Amino acid sequence: MSEPKGIVDNFECFLIDLDGVIWRGNRVLKEAVESVNKLIKRGKKVVFLSNNATKSRREFEGKLNLAGVMISNENAMVVSSAYATAIFIREELGTGSAYVVGEEGLMEELKLAGIRVVNDRFTWNMPVDYVVVGLDRTFTYEKLACAVNAIYNGAKFIATNEDHVIPTEKGLLPGAGSIVAAISKAASRPPEYVIGKPNKYIFEVALKEAGASNEKTVVIGDRLDTDVLGARNSGLASVLVLTGVTSNLEDVKKSKVKPDYVARKLIDIF
Amino acid sequence: MSEPKGIVDNFECFLIDLDGVIWRGNRVLKEAVESVNKLIKRGKKVVFLSNNATKSRREFEGKLNLAGVMISNENAMVVSSAYATAIFIREELGTGSAYVVGEEGLMEELKLAGIRVVNDRFTWNMPVDYVVVGLDRTFTYEKLACAVNAIYNGAKFIATNEDHVIPTEKGLLPGAGSIVAAISKAASRPPEYVIGKPNKYIFEVALKEAGASNEKTVVIGDRLDTDVLGARNSGLASVLVLTGVTSNLEDVKKSKVKPDYVARKLIDIF
Repeated sequence: MSEPKGIVDNFECFLIDLDGVIWRGNRVLKEAVESVNKLIKRGKKVVFLSNNATKSRREFEGKLNLAGVMISNENAMVVSSAYATAIFIREELGTGSAYVVGEEGLMEELKLAGIRVVNDRFTWNMPVDYVVVGLDRTFTYEKLACAVNAIYNGAKFIATNEDHVIPTEKGLLPGAGSIVAAISKAASRPPEYVIGKPNKYIFEVALKEAGASNEKTVVIGDRLDTDVLGARNSGLASVLVLTGVTSNLEDVKKSKVKPDYVARKLIDIF
Repeated sequence: MSEPKGIVDNFECFLIDLDGVIWRGNRVLKEAVESVNKLIKRGKKVVFLSNNATKSRREFEGKLNLAGVMISNENAMVVSSAYATAIFIREELGTGSAYVVGEEGLMEELKLAGIRVVNDRFTWNMPVDYVVVGLDRTFTYEKLACAVNAIYNGAKFIATNEDHVIPTEKGLLPGAGSIVAAISKAASRPPEYVIGKPNKYIFEVALKEAGASNEKTVVIGDRLDTDVLGARNSGLASVLVLTGVTSNLEDVKKSKVKPDYVARKLIDIF
């Protein structure tokens, strides 16, 4: 691990986490926004990379715009686990039908990618190509049963991510991983693909969208277990910023997974 | 493994599973009913032992009565995982307050045992002594979040059982284990106690209720992974009957867990 000062010049593409880096809940970190705008103005590719599968890109772009990020610039884009899941399915498995345990943002991205969401017309033992699972705050036993039934009948089981909790103003709430665990237990099988960080798929989608190479790309995030581990799993450099979940240098020293750089704040990379 | 013929005389207490032994779904196995009535008439203790935590004893007794079982006899009783959980908490941990993820039958048993069910007045970060989890076909994300919040704040996490599926007329549906898995994942911990088969607690409650000794008790069930394994975990003899989940002698031969006796039907123990 070393000081990040000046590393900006070493990379062309920046995969930047949102929660804990650009904002914390609804509080925007202004210096971080200035930093990403500086990157965008310098012609760097900036991909905002979030495991949050409840929002579509459109919604994230709206929130980034409000926060003051130059998101309408052609060098800036959003790759959420919902979008990455949709693109992964279309590119690697082929479009088809999906029973979705997830929120509107995930359904929107799947539909935009040409995948037929069959929730409204799902009937018992109906053949379905995919069961796609993300965080769903309207999750019910009935959805659980339908998802498991579709998997029994041959649907591929795909998870947007497996975060066990999400941080909120109320405290920690169950994450997508909790819903994935319920379905896995009843279906007696883990998901065939987990797209979000720390898995490689979301990084592959992001690099492809940005048209960037591994060597010239760096991952910036606030978590060792998703951002930094994910970077390592994909052979990418990483910067841990101490503005989110991991706020203490001691925790980094104790961790088996080490980032290449540690920055107190995002602006320290300049 | 040997022939069960005549083993009735070796035992004084019979712990008998319901689904797959006395009935299959709503179909009553008449010969099995005649067999248990014969046991009861001979003065044997008969405990109907079920992992199904959605029904109270009262409901099970009603169903047994309809099926023709002499359940009102003083030698016959029901110990469901809901009842065993309630008795285990009262005897081993002490009465207190519980947030319940489960159906009416479980709540009824907890209340009868003097445990205060706080679901109706649960508020965020409220201190609760126990989170009790069984199958809940009205499970929602909100219940998941409340259960996890109570566990974060110090409540003991107790599961009625961990069956991953339940057999129904529609096919397999998610079982209590699926709901336990979701809560475990978000709470980052397994339950502190799992009461139902194959764990020893439900057997301990049953023996105490019947006033029976381990040596004079035999477990009769249709499953290797719950009934027979549970008997072994508790140092009890076991009979596998082939009228339910395990219907093939070949499966018994392949299994690591072996019953002491295999009976084609319950009546073969006479």
